[in-house]
Amino acid sequence: MQQEDQVFLTEEEEEDLFDYAYEKPGSLPGTLSIEEDAQPPEIVLIDYNAKYATRINNLTPEECASYLDTESVSWVDVSGLGSEDILKRLGKVFKLHPLVLEDVVNVPQRPKVEDYQDQLVIITQMAVPKPKGEGFWLEQVSLIVGKYYLLTVQEEPERDCFHPVRRRIRLKQGNIRTKGSDYLAYSLWDAIIDGFFPILESYGEKIENLEDEVLFNPSSQTLGKIYQVKRELLALRRAIWPQRTAINILIRDGSALITDDVLVYLRDCYDHIIQIIDVIETYRELASSLTDVYLSAVSNKMNEVMKLLTVISTIFIPLTFIVGIYGMNFNTEISPWNMPELNWYWGYPLCWLIMLAIASGLIYFFWRKGWFNNSSYYKED
Amino acid sequence: MQQEDQVFLTEEEEEDLFDYAYEKPGSLPGTLSIEEDAQPPEIVLIDYNAKYATRINNLTPEECASYLDTESVSWVDVSGLGSEDILKRLGKVFKLHPLVLEDVVNVPQRPKVEDYQDQLVIITQMAVPKPKGEGFWLEQVSLIVGKYYLLTVQEEPERDCFHPVRRRIRLKQGNIRTKGSDYLAYSLWDAIIDGFFPILESYGEKIENLEDEVLFNPSSQTLGKIYQVKRELLALRRAIWPQRTAINILIRDGSALITDDVLVYLRDCYDHIIQIIDVIETYRELASSLTDVYLSAVSNKMNEVMKLLTVISTIFIPLTFIVGIYGMNFNTEISPWNMPELNWYWGYPLCWLIMLAIASGLIYFFWRKGWFNNSSYYKED
Amino acid sequence: MQQEDQVFLTEEEEEDLFDYAYEKPGSLPGTLSIEEDAQPPEIVLIDYNAKYATRINNLTPEECASYLDTESVSWVDVSGLGSEDILKRLGKVFKLHPLVLEDVVNVPQRPKVEDYQDQLVIITQMAVPKPKGEGFWLEQVSLIVGKYYLLTVQEEPERDCFHPVRRRIRLKQGNIRTKGSDYLAYSLWDAIIDGFFPILESYGEKIENLEDEVLFNPSSQTLGKIYQVKRELLALRRAIWPQRTAINILIRDGSALITDDVLVYLRDCYDHIIQIIDVIETYRELASSLTDVYLSAVSNKMNEVMKLLTVISTIFIPLTFIVGIYGMNFNTEISPWNMPELNWYWGYPLCWLIMLAIASGLIYFFWRKGWFNNSSYYKED
Amino acid sequence: MQQEDQVFLTEEEEEDLFDYAYEKPGSLPGTLSIEEDAQPPEIVLIDYNAKYATRINNLTPEECASYLDTESVSWVDVSGLGSEDILKRLGKVFKLHPLVLEDVVNVPQRPKVEDYQDQLVIITQMAVPKPKGEGFWLEQVSLIVGKYYLLTVQEEPERDCFHPVRRRIRLKQGNIRTKGSDYLAYSLWDAIIDGFFPILESYGEKIENLEDEVLFNPSSQTLGKIYQVKRELLALRRAIWPQRTAINILIRDGSALITDDVLVYLRDCYDHIIQIIDVIETYRELASSLTDVYLSAVSNKMNEVMKLLTVISTIFIPLTFIVGIYGMNFNTEISPWNMPELNWYWGYPLCWLIMLAIASGLIYFFWRKGWFNNSSYYKED
Amino acid sequence: MQQEDQVFLTEEEEEDLFDYAYEKPGSLPGTLSIEEDAQPPEIVLIDYNAKYATRINNLTPEECASYLDTESVSWVDVSGLGSEDILKRLGKVFKLHPLVLEDVVNVPQRPKVEDYQDQLVIITQMAVPKPKGEGFWLEQVSLIVGKYYLLTVQEEPERDCFHPVRRRIRLKQGNIRTKGSDYLAYSLWDAIIDGFFPILESYGEKIENLEDEVLFNPSSQTLGKIYQVKRELLALRRAIWPQRTAINILIRDGSALITDDVLVYLRDCYDHIIQIIDVIETYRELASSLTDVYLSAVSNKMNEVMKLLTVISTIFIPLTFIVGIYGMNFNTEISPWNMPELNWYWGYPLCWLIMLAIASGLIYFFWRKGWFNNSSYYKED
Ligand SMILES: [Mg+2]
Ligand SMILES: [Mg+2]
Ligand SMILES: [Mg+2]
Ligand SMILES: [Mg+2]
Ligand SMILES: [Mg+2]
Ligand SMILES: [Mg+2]
Ligand SMILES: [Mg+2]
Ligand SMILES: [Mg+2]
Ligand SMILES: [Mg+2]
Ligand SMILES: [Mg+2]
Ligand SMILES: [Mg+2]
Ligand SMILES: [Mg+2]
Ligand SMILES: [Mg+2]
Ligand SMILES: [Mg+2]
Ligand SMILES: [Mg+2]
Ligand SMILES: [Mg+2]
Ligand SMILES: [Mg+2]
Ligand SMILES: [Mg+2]
Ligand SMILES: [Mg+2]
Ligand SMILES: [Mg+2]
Ligand SMILES: [Mg+2]
Ligand SMILES: [Mg+2]
Ligand SMILES: [Mg+2]
Ligand SMILES: [Mg+2]
Ligand SMILES: [Mg+2]
Ligand SMILES: [Mg+2]
Ligand SMILES: [Mg+2]
Ligand SMILES: [Mg+2]
Ligand SMILES: [Mg+2]
Ligand SMILES: [Mg+2]
Ligand SMILES: [Mg+2]
Repeated sequence: MQQEDQVFLTEEEEEDLFDYAYEKPGSLPGTLSIEEDAQPPEIVLIDYNAKYATRINNLTPEECASYLDTESVSWVDVSGLGSEDILKRLGKVFKLHPLVLEDVVNVPQRPKVEDYQDQLVIITQMAVPKPKGEGFWLEQVSLIVGKYYLLTVQEEPERDCFHPVRRRIRLKQGNIRTKGSDYLAYSLWDAIIDGFFPILESYGEKIENLEDEVLFNPSSQTLGKIYQVKRELLALRRAIWPQRTAINILIRDGSALITDDVLVYLRDCYDHIIQIIDVIETYRELASSLTDVYLSAVSNKMNEVMKLLTVISTIFIPLTFIVGIYGMNFNTEISPWNMPELNWYWGYPLCWLIMLAIASGLIYFFWRKGWFNNSSYYKED
Repeated sequence: MQQEDQVFLTEEEEEDLFDYAYEKPGSLPGTLSIEEDAQPPEIVLIDYNAKYATRINNLTPEECASYLDTESVSWVDVSGLGSEDILKRLGKVFKLHPLVLEDVVNVPQRPKVEDYQDQLVIITQMAVPKPKGEGFWLEQVSLIVGKYYLLTVQEEPERDCFHPVRRRIRLKQGNIRTKGSDYLAYSLWDAIIDGFFPILESYGEKIENLEDEVLFNPSSQTLGKIYQVKRELLALRRAIWPQRTAINILIRDGSALITDDVLVYLRDCYDHIIQIIDVIETYRELASSLTDVYLSAVSNKMNEVMKLLTVISTIFIPLTFIVGIYGMNFNTEISPWNMPELNWYWGYPLCWLIMLAIASGLIYFFWRKGWFNNSSYYKED
Repeated sequence: MQQEDQVFLTEEEEEDLFDYAYEKPGSLPGTLSIEEDAQPPEIVLIDYNAKYATRINNLTPEECASYLDTESVSWVDVSGLGSEDILKRLGKVFKLHPLVLEDVVNVPQRPKVEDYQDQLVIITQMAVPKPKGEGFWLEQVSLIVGKYYLLTVQEEPERDCFHPVRRRIRLKQGNIRTKGSDYLAYSLWDAIIDGFFPILESYGEKIENLEDEVLFNPSSQTLGKIYQVKRELLALRRAIWPQRTAINILIRDGSALITDDVLVYLRDCYDHIIQIIDVIETYRELASSLTDVYLSAVSNKMNEVMKLLTVISTIFIPLTFIVGIYGMNFNTEISPWNMPELNWYWGYPLCWLIMLAIASGLIYFFWRKGWFNNSSYYKED
Repeated sequence: MQQEDQVFLTEEEEEDLFDYAYEKPGSLPGTLSIEEDAQPPEIVLIDYNAKYATRINNLTPEECASYLDTESVSWVDVSGLGSEDILKRLGKVFKLHPLVLEDVVNVPQRPKVEDYQDQLVIITQMAVPKPKGEGFWLEQVSLIVGKYYLLTVQEEPERDCFHPVRRRIRLKQGNIRTKGSDYLAYSLWDAIIDGFFPILESYGEKIENLEDEVLFNPSSQTLGKIYQVKRELLALRRAIWPQRTAINILIRDGSALITDDVLVYLRDCYDHIIQIIDVIETYRELASSLTDVYLSAVSNKMNEVMKLLTVISTIFIPLTFIVGIYGMNFNTEISPWNMPELNWYWGYPLCWLIMLAIASGLIYFFWRKGWFNNSSYYKED
Repeated sequence: MQQEDQVFLTEEEEEDLFDYAYEKPGSLPGTLSIEEDAQPPEIVLIDYNAKYATRINNLTPEECASYLDTESVSWVDVSGLGSEDILKRLGKVFKLHPLVLEDVVNVPQRPKVEDYQDQLVIITQMAVPKPKGEGFWLEQVSLIVGKYYLLTVQEEPERDCFHPVRRRIRLKQGNIRTKGSDYLAYSLWDAIIDGFFPILESYGEKIENLEDEVLFNPSSQTLGKIYQVKRELLALRRAIWPQRTAINILIRDGSALITDDVLVYLRDCYDHIIQIIDVIETYRELASSLTDVYLSAVSNKMNEVMKLLTVISTIFIPLTFIVGIYGMNFNTEISPWNMPELNWYWGYPLCWLIMLAIASGLIYFFWRKGWFNNSSYYKED
């Protein structure tokens, strides 16, 4: 049982892969659904321009307000969706449309981009690999881009993939400090997208291992593992595919909030998304083909089993018949026609000769048919 | 037999899943087809504006007429399609095009949106979950949006998912009372769409149970259950897919009867429909993959059976041959070549030794081949 | 053999399902190919306006000429393609382009719409159900719409689905008598399209029966029946799919010969075609899934057979070995080691005890494995 | 071995079905690759207008030059690609772009249309049926349409499908003599397209035969035959599909060299191509479904075999055990418990009675299970 | 083990087929990732115009600078990506956008075309066949087209397919020396594309061999080989497919750096890409169909095995039962009913007669069923 747990996800983990938000049917538009186990929101502000950069932890929504209209870039990062009150106050401070706040809070939504003149709303999914290559967490990250600010909202405070960006701001690496909030949004989205690659890599390895397993050592668990890989690739694809559409629309239609300069960088992101989708589809096709190979391996194994049974039966059943004949109790004294062989001088050796001849003949027949070449190349250990 | 009924739908229920309306070929356009078991229509009027809200039950069509041109929003809700007379009078009062009345009455039509300048006709399908998670009912709901009124026509009076909206009107929740008939139409359509989510959830659980069943306890009923899930997901998809097209056309082309304000809300609906379709397709893919896993599980089970038969046969058939030999009745007295073993002092023990050696050798051979590790992980109980 | 004929179509009928017209390669454009068994054309004229309606049977093509330019609607219905002479004269009277006449006569063509300024050519396929639900006939119907006339050409005089329309003209039902030739063309096309529904219904029933058969009583004929259904649905789809494209082009581009009023009715037709295609695709998917279920049912049946063989063999083969042992003829007198059991007082009962123990052990083993629960739910009768 | 050759194509023939031209990578654009077995080009000129028509065989390219600018239509037909010199001179006379000459000579190219202002280049594939319905040859035919001339280049001089067109020119059938080079190009392309129909017909028959074979008489060769049909249909589709695109582009965009009059005829060609593709796809779907039916027929056959084995084994193994019991040599004299049955008066008949009872019981059991109804409908001969 | 290595790629080789570049998530845009085993870059300059051509090996990036603005075409070919320093200096000399340099260095990227006003960036994949037909290497080649220069960057210095182009420049073959950098870029891309054809050809042969193997000599390795072919075709498709999109965009949108003259040549390239994709898809379909044929061949083989077992068992089991009967030890002296046959004069011959009759009957039965015609056509050797 313990072994199974290593192969298959627990029920809770599975649920997360194909999760989707929904409110009680008929509820008011803008209704926020706070999950019971959601963690309380932490608000962190990073405010910077070319000259300085500062970080303030644990603000209230209202404390953010004064930063929003200053020309420095103000990145307000909210992690945790566990307080309706704070989230509503946040919505008020940032003047979010109720439907936008709903999308931000009722996670997970399908990734998308929506342009509200003075705000650009980007809903994305971040994939964070679990330790020991055991799958990944999906987490919604919402980016609301304003003229001088960027609001990001994450589901969980424990993990994100934004540390390199924070370091670039702190250490003034690259030109992030001289650019606007749109470039910051690009940098974060780029980090999210690049975060899919290490996960893809682990599935590449899994598929290679499965190829070896299917070809050389297929067991009854193999197809379950292939199914699991297919399932997780499906979840990955579901997370990345709509981001492709979103970024494509953004590049095609532009936005007052995105400078041309940053559009070039977004095209680079787009290339990466295409790359990711391409690899996922390739892996899915390989996994599908592996299913066929596995089914044929099972059939071939059964063939081997059947051949063994047939060889043994075909050789020994006729012999058993022969020895049965001379086990009959016909009265040899009553008639010279009743089993005279039993009284022949060479009767028993002759009987053996016949049996050996039959066995040899059959063995030769099977050898000619190629049943003894061990044509399978999977090791039995 | 009783057990089967729990797994499979009755014929009548099945028919409903893939139902479609059709009139006698060649019948006049606008011909109404009243089903025999259709219930008599109940007409309920809810008339409201920001200041007051009133509800009148059991009106005649003609009694609705006076409300239609007043500026308050007049929601005329008709449930039940069992009277051609009332429905025709309704068509007259609301000035419905004969083809529109036909679409409203000859259920189920494919969901769609049609814009007749002064009326916007929306045909939708509502999915209502059955008790105990045993599937769902599909019911056509037609919405005819006028400037100051909304006419909704449902197939059945017993159930709908509009109660939360009625309560919001009664209790003045949200801003429904300050908005027009277009917002009311949106609210109802939103309730219909959100109603698909709890049903989806039950199929998510069914698929998870089937995953466990296929991997750990496949029976000959399993594929029948997978087929049933596929079938019902197909019916769900058929109900929601055209609604996507309909809402998309409405958002893209707009309508004189839909304010821009409400279009934003319809986009939110559209997101939800996409979400639903996405989940349905995901479930369908999972169900398809499960079919492969099941077929391989059946093959693996057969492999186990064959292996057992082969082990037993391969060990005992040669032994039976040997004991057969010494059951032969060759006359040992006539010749020293005739079965002298029978008269050896250690003849019988030697015979056992040989047989034990053969049996051990074969058992070792099968053990080396790995036939004794119980490689299957499905419990046999 | 007779039984087979009931399940499968005769060769001639099969040919008709996937028929297509072709002339000798390189033949002149406009060459008419008259099939040998084509019936002689019957020409019937129905001439009407709001005030009167008259019907004339068995006209010559030339007798039609005088009606064509009068303002009354003149419906010339030609059934039967068995005379090149009459058809060519018809072409001359109606001023048909040689390629149009070719399309009308060399049946079946792919359904399409072509607009020749003063004539609108509509090629459709009519599906007429055979008696006893045994499939359907496909027949090309060509509609040539002129300003004041409609020419229809059918393959066969025996059957069509236009009687309700003729009655509506005769009895002045609806408003057909007050409308033009375009409305008449719509009415006939509508009758043709509605004619697919009863056929679809019979396939719905066939699929339901096949579901029951596959799940509860699969036989070696079952997949042949599923194949037959798939095949006929493919033929139906081939007949209706191009009509969708045709009507869609007509609605999108309009035509000088179709009034806006009638376009609304054509949209209704379009809805019905979409409905039909939708149902056909659904049925095809169900039939495909049923194939999987059937294959697994066959595997499960084989599993049952193998289990029975294995149970019987596994229990009796060891026992037969044991009784074989005590059938050996080792000389018990020569040595106390040679089969002393044969001379024990309780030898035989002990032997039985051992055999019963082995048998019980094995039976218990199989019972624990669940091999005795009749897990299959298909009745064996 | 000889038998195989009748079912499967030889390697050389197979290669031709999926052939494609390619030059040595990096070779100069315009490099001509002459195949070793290519035949020397024959040039035939047919020059005609409404008043006269003349045919000249075996011209040199330069001799054609004087005809090209005269107003009569000059059809220069080149068959055979075996001389680089002649082909290059031809290119010079007709002022072909080097890339056009390359496409014409390095066969087979993908069918396409290219418009070079004063020349319209049409690359097509001609399918010529082999004798005895054994597949078809594919051959590239290139048509270069000029204002007053048409150059056609074929791979092989032995066969083409243009004789009916030549006869129409000679005998002045239809109006080909009064039309221009564009009408001639249409006539030839039409002949090429119509040439696919008889080939399709032979595949229709093959599929019908395979249906019968799969359902009534499946052998281990059957799937190989289905595969062969699929393979050849794939090759046919590959030859016709790009012609659809080509003609569609020509109709949509027009060309200075094609009169409107001829465009109407090209639309007729387009209809035929669509028809051909439609039939090919239908056949491919049928062949795919047949694969499933075949696999299930094989499984059903195995089921029958297993049932026979199981019936025989299940009946006789217990009986053999019983007779084994009474073959044991327990000493009946030492103890009344040792096989007293052997000494009973009715011992032997009783033994038979028991065995008959067991056999009858089992036979009844199998009969109840329906194992004796010969449920398969394939004849064994 | 050694044998396996010949059939399957080593892990390292496999990785290369489905490789994709990715940087550490969150890294700065423009970060270069130099692989450890990358070789140091070699820079070769070929500078030419109609009058002269010169080649300089082993330049530094800075030494290239002076050539770039002269009107002669300067082809700077960089092979090897093993020095961040040199590559960055190269980027500076050629004024590459940081994202372009990233795409050029962080290989492999998805092929694409990007137009930066004064530079046209083309990312392609070159496929180079391995010796002995054992697959192929994929290598990214980036082409940066400037007004008077072309920069190409390859991954590996050991191999490329540009030698014929270099020779054409050196020997002044064709008109390459009179054309600009755009024609040079076309020539190289054309060489890359043409390089796919010989590889395709080897897969064509592999598939033909697999057809023979599947039909005449299927082994348990066969499906592994088919899988391998599918896998490699998938990798080929992944390399060529995006090049189609890239060249298509280039042809459609044009570029200031590509003359109309060269666009005609690019259309020729486009034809070849389409051809390649077409062939790859055809091969993939064939490989898929082969999987079905293989699975049925395995089933048929199992059928043969089962038939043999069944024939032998069915004939000998009843006979063994009979001889068992007369091996029973009923006391014939106690009763005339106890096995009187044993004492008959013709007992033993009669017993043989009965057995022969049974055996003949069964053999006739199997012969009638056609079990002895060796219906399989795969040779057993
Ligand atoms: Mg679960
Ligand atoms: Mg969650
Ligand atoms: Mg909502
Ligand atoms: Mg987080
Ligand atoms: Mg990136
Ligand atoms: Mg990039
Ligand atoms: Mg049912
Ligand atoms: Mg209903
Ligand atoms: Mg109707
Ligand atoms: Mg209701
Ligand atoms: Mg909603
Ligand atoms: Mg689970
Ligand atoms: Mg939303
Ligand atoms: Mg037939
Ligand atoms: Mg016909
Ligand atoms: Mg024709
Ligand atoms: Mg008719
Ligand atoms: Mg209709
Ligand atoms: Mg309608
Ligand atoms: Mg071959
Ligand atoms: Mg060739
Ligand atoms: Mg070339
Ligand atoms: Mg030829
Ligand atoms: Mg034609
Ligand atoms: Mg035509
Ligand atoms: Mg490997
Ligand atoms: Mg590499
Ligand atoms: Mg980057
Ligand atoms: Mg290289
Ligand atoms: Mg080329
Ligand atoms: Mg070319």
